[in-house]
Amino acid sequence: MGKVIFDVSMSLDGFITGANPRPEEGWGGLGEGGKRLHDWGFESADPRNREIIAGWATIGAVLVGRTTYDLSILNWGADGPTGPARTPTVVVSHSVPQDVPLGGVYTFVNGVEAAFETAQKLAGGQDISTTGANVAQQLITLGLVDEISIHLVPVLFGSGTRLFEGLDSEHVPLETIEVIETAEAIHLRFRVVK
Amino acid sequence: MGKVIFDVSMSLDGFITGANPRPEEGWGGLGEGGKRLHDWGFESADPRNREIIAGWATIGAVLVGRTTYDLSILNWGADGPTGPARTPTVVVSHSVPQDVPLGGVYTFVNGVEAAFETAQKLAGGQDISTTGANVAQQLITLGLVDEISIHLVPVLFGSGTRLFEGLDSEHVPLETIEVIETAEAIHLRFRVVK
Repeated sequence: MGKVIFDVSMSLDGFITGANPRPEEGWGGLGEGGKRLHDWGFESADPRNREIIAGWATIGAVLVGRTTYDLSILNWGADGPTGPARTPTVVVSHSVPQDVPLGGVYTFVNGVEAAFETAQKLAGGQDISTTGANVAQQLITLGLVDEISIHLVPVLFGSGTRLFEGLDSEHVPLETIEVIETAEAIHLRFRVVK
Repeated sequence: MGKVIFDVSMSLDGFITGANPRPEEGWGGLGEGGKRLHDWGFESADPRNREIIAGWATIGAVLVGRTTYDLSILNWGADGPTGPARTPTVVVSHSVPQDVPLGGVYTFVNGVEAAFETAQKLAGGQDISTTGANVAQQLITLGLVDEISIHLVPVLFGSGTRLFEGLDSEHVPLETIEVIETAEAIHLRFRVVK
């Protein structure tokens, strides 16, 4: 069984998009100025940033919420969040959206727990990656997340989509596994202590 | 002129106290389980944690809000937040509270900007340290903060006092100055890019 890794880029003040994220091509889904949170992955020549992205090759399935899907689909297209790797991507959703790309990597499942089971089957023993705010926090609350990987970007956003809106759980202790400092992001990896 | 350093211990999900912080002796001001955010300073044998506290010796004045004062005064007593160093401590407050300790280090000033000027005078060219949520964010918005020093504690709190409630400003770019990883906290120091 692979690990479940919650992986997200976040401003120092806890936002994962800028203000006014909207479903459109380009970077609209990341909100105003939100692309900055992902520059470490796209615009950095630092090999340590490239290595982190290369590490995603072991991901067997991606699990996201419907909001993340809606904001991202015009960029993801049929191949999904990992591009040419075409990683199976499970979307927690009450319904199958219109205009799902032909030949897409997506499976739509109602309910977080059922979606998680589907992702486990599709991952075939490899790791599951989850991102976004809502679904990931539900998974943490359910005790299903093994690692939290935060790409902490040195900027204060002040507004946007807040990652941690308040977990419906007791305090969740973490153990720091790794800290990698680059100019564009500080990569923090934690194990969830169960 | 010294620097203005915003210095605070924070959970990974952005809380600086646990739930229900209340003015009482012991750790009540830090809320339920909130002491964990400060264990790196009090209970760690790691010399890197001790060095960070030793670095506070260069602080010429502390600037806090009334909420922080009210929650902390029973622990701080007459000597203030730095204990025996008796650093002059300016509190932004509409009024002078009752029961201010005799021989205390405190000065109460109405308004953030006036309080900042008082802190500058008292600091005598040394650095000013500010902590807490409200006043520090007002100082950031006013462009008066030079460095942000976050002691990031590997735990998810889910509730409590949120540090960054939403700045009333444009995005504030930061530059990472230093990252020090210890088991109890990851010490992150940023320069505010002006």
